Amino acid sequence: MDAAALEGFLAEIFPQIAEDFAVEVLEPERLVVRLKVAYRHLRPGGTVSGPSIFALVDVGVYLATLARIGPVGLAVTTNSSLDFLRKPVGDRDLLAEVRMLKLGRSLAMADALVFSEGDAAPVARGSMTYAIPPKR
Amino acid sequence: MDAAALEGFLAEIFPQIAEDFAVEVLEPERLVVRLKVAYRHLRPGGTVSGPSIFALVDVGVYLATLARIGPVGLAVTTNSSLDFLRKPVGDRDLLAEVRMLKLGRSLAMADALVFSEGDAAPVARGSMTYAIPPKR
Amino acid sequence: MDAAALEGFLAEIFPQIAEDFAVEVLEPERLVVRLKVAYRHLRPGGTVSGPSIFALVDVGVYLATLARIGPVGLAVTTNSSLDFLRKPVGDRDLLAEVRMLKLGRSLAMADALVFSEGDAAPVARGSMTYAIPPKR
Amino acid sequence: MDAAALEGFLAEIFPQIAEDFAVEVLEPERLVVRLKVAYRHLRPGGTVSGPSIFALVDVGVYLATLARIGPVGLAVTTNSSLDFLRKPVGDRDLLAEVRMLKLGRSLAMADALVFSEGDAAPVARGSMTYAIPPKR
Repeated sequence: MDAAALEGFLAEIFPQIAEDFAVEVLEPERLVVRLKVAYRHLRPGGTVSGPSIFALVDVGVYLATLARIGPVGLAVTTNSSLDFLRKPVGDRDLLAEVRMLKLGRSLAMADALVFSEGDAAPVARGSMTYAIPPKR
Repeated sequence: MDAAALEGFLAEIFPQIAEDFAVEVLEPERLVVRLKVAYRHLRPGGTVSGPSIFALVDVGVYLATLARIGPVGLAVTTNSSLDFLRKPVGDRDLLAEVRMLKLGRSLAMADALVFSEGDAAPVARGSMTYAIPPKR
Repeated sequence: MDAAALEGFLAEIFPQIAEDFAVEVLEPERLVVRLKVAYRHLRPGGTVSGPSIFALVDVGVYLATLARIGPVGLAVTTNSSLDFLRKPVGDRDLLAEVRMLKLGRSLAMADALVFSEGDAAPVARGSMTYAIPPKR
Repeated sequence: MDAAALEGFLAEIFPQIAEDFAVEVLEPERLVVRLKVAYRHLRPGGTVSGPSIFALVDVGVYLATLARIGPVGLAVTTNSSLDFLRKPVGDRDLLAEVRMLKLGRSLAMADALVFSEGDAAPVARGSMTYAIPPKR
């Protein structure tokens, strides 16, 4: 799947959140996903909320998996870990650099670094495992 | 801080999300926090989203910390891990049973089991570490 | 499998480490595993090493899984998270209280609290996910 | 601290394990640490044990922190997460590529990819947080 196909699939199956995200870069070994930061993603002090960062990493890993195996609506997150490194600023989008680490028959594992756009120092690191349903 | 004080403090510093949560039980060794599940927390198939579960555990651990040390607006999450066990149903609230594991001078650590209200089998397990700012 | 069967299976397939561990309690909803702390598990300052605590949680979750599904030598750990709460003392054994959270067809998830024997405050919290190979 | 100083410090404060490890590469933005795989690190089927991989990541992050801040024997691991991607072979050493993500006054956070020497596909991913004691 290419970037447009990924965004289209996201809009179809996750209509509640698809407009929050955009696929910035999709190359064989690299995926960058953008969170379009809006008021609902913020916390006091003008920073982006933890759940929004979780959502960005989760969507990023999901899209990286779909880009490889095609549209699988039923893949589910089974495990996640997130480390919060610095406070993101609230007036810039967040970008997640996703790295696919394993794509097996039943499990996909990837991690991501999250940046405030334009900053070189990451604001968060996250990893996610997805269970892929067996093919019928 | 008691349950009403915790909810009041949450409403003051996290107005974007305070109405999503309620303190169900607050005892010396036990805190139960409710996520009032609404349409914005759902995903296709009528299940509650991962970021909503993250938010519930995060708020639960934050409130458990405040209950012990008093209102500290600047405590920040540094690490989290979440395991997703079962799909929560979308038409019931979620309850997080929070367990404080360590309350040091600079770090608080706690974990939580998350349940769909009325079900005995947990839908998720999560743990969070909070950095507590030094007292002035 | 009962406690003796678990220990026997461990001795058969993990001879390098089986003598380090003992099953203290095995009840339908509760498993307690002991790490017999020896010099090789220690670190300077007389504390038990992180890898030893990892090993204890890993073995504990593995045994809790086997107790339910029978001897499956090929189950493998896929994800783990550990939070270190306090320094264990080096002159007492460690005990892990294991809690099975999910036992599905392909994944088992459990967590554990680890204690220095005789202390009420846990020294570590850990969770593990095991992939269970499909039955032939 | 340079590679020799790191190895010397490790030998001084962790004599039980220092001979298991070697610093392969130490550059401003890159640290590679080797686990010299021996029989005691193995599991049946000729693979390297989970606790050995944990130890490698833990030592790698510790050394990456020391390389920046100098010899601090009292830094302690507070949180860790590990994802196991593939089975390492037992007849080759493991190499950890460590990436420092944050070096604050009180917390250091880093992650690592672990490889069987000569293989391009990682066998594990891990992240660690270290608490740095306050300077006197």
